[in-house]
Amino acid sequence: MPIITLEGPRITDLDRRRRLIRELTDAAVKAYGLPQEKIIVILHENSREQVGVGGELLADKD
Amino acid sequence: MPIITLEGPRITDLDRRRRLIRELTDAAVKAYGLPQEKIIVILHENSREQVGVGGELLADKD
Amino acid sequence: MPIITLEGPRITDLDRRRRLIRELTDAAVKAYGLPQEKIIVILHENSREQVGVGGELLADKD
Amino acid sequence: MPIITLEGPRITDLDRRRRLIRELTDAAVKAYGLPQEKIIVILHENSREQVGVGGELLADKD
Amino acid sequence: MPIITLEGPRITDLDRRRRLIRELTDAAVKAYGLPQEKIIVILHENSREQVGVGGELLADKD
Amino acid sequence: MPIITLEGPRITDLDRRRRLIRELTDAAVKAYGLPQEKIIVILHENSREQVGVGGELLADKD
Repeated sequence: MPIITLEGPRITDLDRRRRLIRELTDAAVKAYGLPQEKIIVILHENSREQVGVGGELLADKD
Repeated sequence: MPIITLEGPRITDLDRRRRLIRELTDAAVKAYGLPQEKIIVILHENSREQVGVGGELLADKD
Repeated sequence: MPIITLEGPRITDLDRRRRLIRELTDAAVKAYGLPQEKIIVILHENSREQVGVGGELLADKD
Repeated sequence: MPIITLEGPRITDLDRRRRLIRELTDAAVKAYGLPQEKIIVILHENSREQVGVGGELLADKD
Repeated sequence: MPIITLEGPRITDLDRRRRLIRELTDAAVKAYGLPQEKIIVILHENSREQVGVGGELLADKD
Repeated sequence: MPIITLEGPRITDLDRRRRLIRELTDAAVKAYGLPQEKIIVILHENSREQVGVGGELLADKD
């Protein structure tokens, strides 16, 4: 049942997305000693208008 | 204040969505003994490119 | 993979907890048409010092 | 590292969004005594078809 | 219904906690133009063994 | 700012925890092309009385 939720920017390349899911899953498999099919990954994608760092919208940085 | 957040695929049928919210709310009302208007439900909808199970994108599973 | 996360107060009675999990699961099974074993429920329990409603700590209310 | 996640309706006005992020950040800076650049804010925006209060879809209210 | 969830270290001082909840609530009231009693704040407290920044456990820093 | 939140059982061994955080961080660094110090990992630990799979408490599964 371990569930990995990632809040980050959008990843457009589908292969990059596949590899990310595989590597996050592998890390959890090793840590918990659970079979791979128990691990769930959810990618929450956020635009630069939805995130603030240091009090400033990402969209306003550089 | 109990808050139920559901991460799942998109539900297109509005009545199905209404019934889901009603049933999740009822379950919480019974468990907490709180009035119904205290219960909040949020449906987070995820595409098959945003979810991985067993290290594989849902979009890649048949 | 649907995942139901519930933020609420602590439920001490184990049977109440069991019934809550069963009913939340049933609601999701009906809404998504997925087999029951795909549904995960997580109960996050919060003390009255961890929650504010209307700008006030729950611990400070009545 | 404190992370503030806000689940709410969409805020269309960009300045309102900027001010919200600044004020949430300031509140966390004071509470934790950490430098401002450590604070992250994520705004999750939900439509009225995604939220239920009191067992009813927001979209069905008033 | 806006819900503010804060993931941060533990705040032991109860007054600091009260002020944080009040200020987060005020920021949301202004941004959404909703009455104060609609705003919910949840403080999730995490130990230094539960958080990693830059690949390193907080407990291992300084 | 990418934030990885993991909901899972408790990991008692500190080295296992360190390695998990390092590997999750590495996966995010590769996927986003961001410097390592931008990546935050939060481990939420749940007891077997807090999680249900398939409508059943983990604590009730042998």
